[in-house]
Amino acid sequence: MPKIVDHDKRRHEIALAACRAIAKKGLDAVTLADIAKESGYTTGMLAHYYSTKWDVILAALRLMHDRLEKRLSQRLNGQEIDLVDLLKDALPTNPEHRAESAAWLTFWGVAIGRPHLLKWSAKIHSDWRALVRYCVVETTPGARSWPPDLIEDVVSSIIFFMDGLYVKALTRASVYPPKDQVRLLRAHVDALMSWAAARVPEAPKGGIARGAPAPVAAPTQRPSGRRIKAAPTL
Amino acid sequence: MPKIVDHDKRRHEIALAACRAIAKKGLDAVTLADIAKESGYTTGMLAHYYSTKWDVILAALRLMHDRLEKRLSQRLNGQEIDLVDLLKDALPTNPEHRAESAAWLTFWGVAIGRPHLLKWSAKIHSDWRALVRYCVVETTPGARSWPPDLIEDVVSSIIFFMDGLYVKALTRASVYPPKDQVRLLRAHVDALMSWAAARVPEAPKGGIARGAPAPVAAPTQRPSGRRIKAAPTL
Repeated sequence: MPKIVDHDKRRHEIALAACRAIAKKGLDAVTLADIAKESGYTTGMLAHYYSTKWDVILAALRLMHDRLEKRLSQRLNGQEIDLVDLLKDALPTNPEHRAESAAWLTFWGVAIGRPHLLKWSAKIHSDWRALVRYCVVETTPGARSWPPDLIEDVVSSIIFFMDGLYVKALTRASVYPPKDQVRLLRAHVDALMSWAAARVPEAPKGGIARGAPAPVAAPTQRPSGRRIKAAPTL
Repeated sequence: MPKIVDHDKRRHEIALAACRAIAKKGLDAVTLADIAKESGYTTGMLAHYYSTKWDVILAALRLMHDRLEKRLSQRLNGQEIDLVDLLKDALPTNPEHRAESAAWLTFWGVAIGRPHLLKWSAKIHSDWRALVRYCVVETTPGARSWPPDLIEDVVSSIIFFMDGLYVKALTRASVYPPKDQVRLLRAHVDALMSWAAARVPEAPKGGIARGAPAPVAAPTQRPSGRRIKAAPTL
């Protein structure tokens, strides 16, 4: 009887091996042979699942993103409610997260000027925005009724700050140890939230009358199942 | 009579040609032949001045940094006093600045895990910190007497935010047009400065008595001549 192969499982296995190979060699230096070796399969076998080195790398980056999304979603559904405690899980504060951030940083540098990679990266960016937006709304009292533009600006600001923090934490590791990364992220979030709170339109004078309609909630993305859906426009 | 060659001028010419070649082909794709073609010299002639492709690239990146430093210093010494108006000159808001930011982003990705590139990059980072610190101190009333740690945190925050803005402005150009880059930077600086102001230790009650010594100024780096010296520790 022929052996039944779970192809999805094997694709996942190969992408996971690619993550490990990228962590060891760096995204720009890793070869298909490195990934094959790490997976325990031959490069010929890999070719059944992925056409090029870039296909495997994109699958590996997608997997890294999905794992981060899963970690954050699980903690958000658990006891954690502080935004910085949530987001710090995405900072390069341990070897595994450093390897992931390094892969992204190298990928961005390679993707500039390569439309197919930028298009793919835009999709992940949307997913990441949706996740950060959800974390902000779930952890910030009142944020559900903020104007949508204000929420988007807060999300952009957090994402810019964290991307910049990756750059420096990876290229100047000795100057930005984990505790300083977290401290600076907390200062940023504190400052940002004060700034945002000052921009929330005031409630009608005398408060909202009993029986009056509740303020319209900003259309925030909610996770459906495990995966958080991307916002359509950003 | 033999022709007298100004070698410094020629090195500069080649580095400038490298900047143009990087802008056209991207940092990861540019070759020594591209740089030679752009400069009008042969690759053999380039070899008299630079040993490897990376030597030329590092000289080009240094030149880009020096030009930015010069632009900002000149404007700081002129009529401009608003911090965001100064810093926006470093954002990828036009094709030339986009090419420069793209070169840096690609460089950071390549430099991770390559100690000699990281060491070189750390030097530029120190110079950039010193310049941002100087811009902050010169444009923010009272900042000269802020505690040094507070100034360093403000500088870190601005640099993180701008680096992250490069990443997104380059990989998601349609979503972050120049006017939104500037608007988001302004929001960040506004929020950050309010946060910082709330952390400045209060002056002694009743104000500073006449004849009392002035508060000790934080040791900020001042430009000496055109070049702004790097801070020793960051």
